Amino acid sequence: MNLLTQTLEKISPLSNQWFADAQKRLDNLTKPLGSLGRLEEFAARIVAIREDMSPTLDKKAIFTFAGDHGITDEGVSAFPKEVTQQMVFNFLRGGAGINVLARHAGAEVVVVDVGVAHEFEKADGLLNFKVVNGTKNFAIGPAMTMQEAVKCIETGIEIAQGYAKKGFKIFGTGDMGIGNTTPSSAIAAVLTGKSVAEVTGRGTGINDNAHANKVRVIEKGIEVNKPSSSDALDVLAKVGGAEIGGIAGLILGAASLRIPVVVDGFISTAGALIAYSLKPECAEYMFAAHSSVEPGHKAMLEKIGLRPILDLSMRLGEGTGAAIAMLVIEAGLKIYREMATFGEAGVSAGN
Amino acid sequence: MNLLTQTLEKISPLSNQWFADAQKRLDNLTKPLGSLGRLEEFAARIVAIREDMSPTLDKKAIFTFAGDHGITDEGVSAFPKEVTQQMVFNFLRGGAGINVLARHAGAEVVVVDVGVAHEFEKADGLLNFKVVNGTKNFAIGPAMTMQEAVKCIETGIEIAQGYAKKGFKIFGTGDMGIGNTTPSSAIAAVLTGKSVAEVTGRGTGINDNAHANKVRVIEKGIEVNKPSSSDALDVLAKVGGAEIGGIAGLILGAASLRIPVVVDGFISTAGALIAYSLKPECAEYMFAAHSSVEPGHKAMLEKIGLRPILDLSMRLGEGTGAAIAMLVIEAGLKIYREMATFGEAGVSAGN
Repeated sequence: MNLLTQTLEKISPLSNQWFADAQKRLDNLTKPLGSLGRLEEFAARIVAIREDMSPTLDKKAIFTFAGDHGITDEGVSAFPKEVTQQMVFNFLRGGAGINVLARHAGAEVVVVDVGVAHEFEKADGLLNFKVVNGTKNFAIGPAMTMQEAVKCIETGIEIAQGYAKKGFKIFGTGDMGIGNTTPSSAIAAVLTGKSVAEVTGRGTGINDNAHANKVRVIEKGIEVNKPSSSDALDVLAKVGGAEIGGIAGLILGAASLRIPVVVDGFISTAGALIAYSLKPECAEYMFAAHSSVEPGHKAMLEKIGLRPILDLSMRLGEGTGAAIAMLVIEAGLKIYREMATFGEAGVSAGN
Repeated sequence: MNLLTQTLEKISPLSNQWFADAQKRLDNLTKPLGSLGRLEEFAARIVAIREDMSPTLDKKAIFTFAGDHGITDEGVSAFPKEVTQQMVFNFLRGGAGINVLARHAGAEVVVVDVGVAHEFEKADGLLNFKVVNGTKNFAIGPAMTMQEAVKCIETGIEIAQGYAKKGFKIFGTGDMGIGNTTPSSAIAAVLTGKSVAEVTGRGTGINDNAHANKVRVIEKGIEVNKPSSSDALDVLAKVGGAEIGGIAGLILGAASLRIPVVVDGFISTAGALIAYSLKPECAEYMFAAHSSVEPGHKAMLEKIGLRPILDLSMRLGEGTGAAIAMLVIEAGLKIYREMATFGEAGVSAGN
């Protein structure tokens, strides 16, 4: 708990002065004022996060946290549980969606086993940080103990610290875990105050009956466990997931180290909401990659105060949205760094 | 006119079979069905456009068509007319927004002088295809003759043919021309049937008074010239611009050669609407890069039937939106080409 407490203390709000200084440069580039819209916002925020008038994003990593979920016993997913471990192998061989899109974005993929119900051998690109062998079925009792939940978050923090030391400049979050839209919807319901039905979608693609069952299972899990909406650690432990805790930790670690972090979709945003609930200032270090098809996503983004960068009807997870969004954020930073000013280009300014 | 007529004849609708074959492969990749949303759409459309089950987009070019506008005599822009030629030099030196973003996207920038009121020397990266020395003030009479309008379009077609021959696989459109939101709004009003006030925005950043004047100037120009809403060439000649004609031609040329073309923002979409009005089937070869801040953009996209890829509050033009959208389209194609299938990866399929 020490590491978590220390990390929360290190997260501070961004300074307006850095935004203003960055905007001054942006306003002097050869384009009408503000005409690059959100690209300019992204650049100014990177400057303010890094407290560096000439930041770079040359080393990028996307962390795909993997975990299994006891709640799959309740028939909440279209895919069998074994797919979590099968997909980890697919990640390590480079054949999954996140591998393709991270290559496209020039980012490294780091797979983190924080809670898969399978013992992996050591492998390049895989971090063995298992906290649980899959969570317990939260329709019956708590998914994890409080100690396990904290350990998941601290794992994410340690990974952020290690990759900051290696010189990485921007992080992306990602997830793999069959069944994990179920704990994510539970977290969304408890922490946004919306009804379970409002924040529960079809995950990887379940039918109407299975969807109705999923809503009932989450309602039951919340009734049985009574997570406290004012205690995010309690929520994570009782109805959450190991990979969701890892993502929350990565975000908190990034914010404490002044590293921008791109939050992928629905499951990652559940992790982001846990992080935000523990320390609201960490939101200033986050970029919301995209708007997921999952109905609970919007409610969580609004609660955190994030506006998504992309809207491509994606719902795969793994960090796939984060990879594409990184390319867009980087576009903004390149504008800031590489465009000529009116003076340099000999172009007349507007009135 | 011969080249234009022949080009229109060569444009044919896409075949459903290619879409179906592409979707079959997409559905067999290690992800839930349809979970990559619009990325899957983009990939399938590239397959159908190219009629190639394994297409590539390795050679990309963005064509920034430049022209001046006599209508600037009416005080419709925040910038002086000279900025068009100054920005052409900025493009050639690599310091403009489009240079930065095209480098980011791995695309070549090709600047086309189709109507700038300045004689440029030969330069690398500049195509000298001047049709007019700036258009005439359309508040008084036609911007161009019919012959000039057709010549602008045929210039775009010839450029498409030349770059197709050089092995380029995807084109982006872009524009530079102080005052060119004014003819674009005029085209939008005439061809969508909306009122001038509904489709006229603030361009590079004019104040309320200048905006009211801009609306009046466009209304007057339409009254004076009476462009026929059923004759896109008449509209282009009377209230259009040389660069808008070039963009229309590039799009028609691309469609006739089965080359996908990414349409940038407001001015490019005015060109796209001219192209669409001449041959509606060309819309199937277009990708709308982004949703511009200009209010008339949406009306034109709806008329053509295009849904923008990005929404980043951009309004710079030059092809800047097209550059970023190319990266997203390419992401979709890489998913299609590089992801492992369930069989290859040994991953269980869903139910």
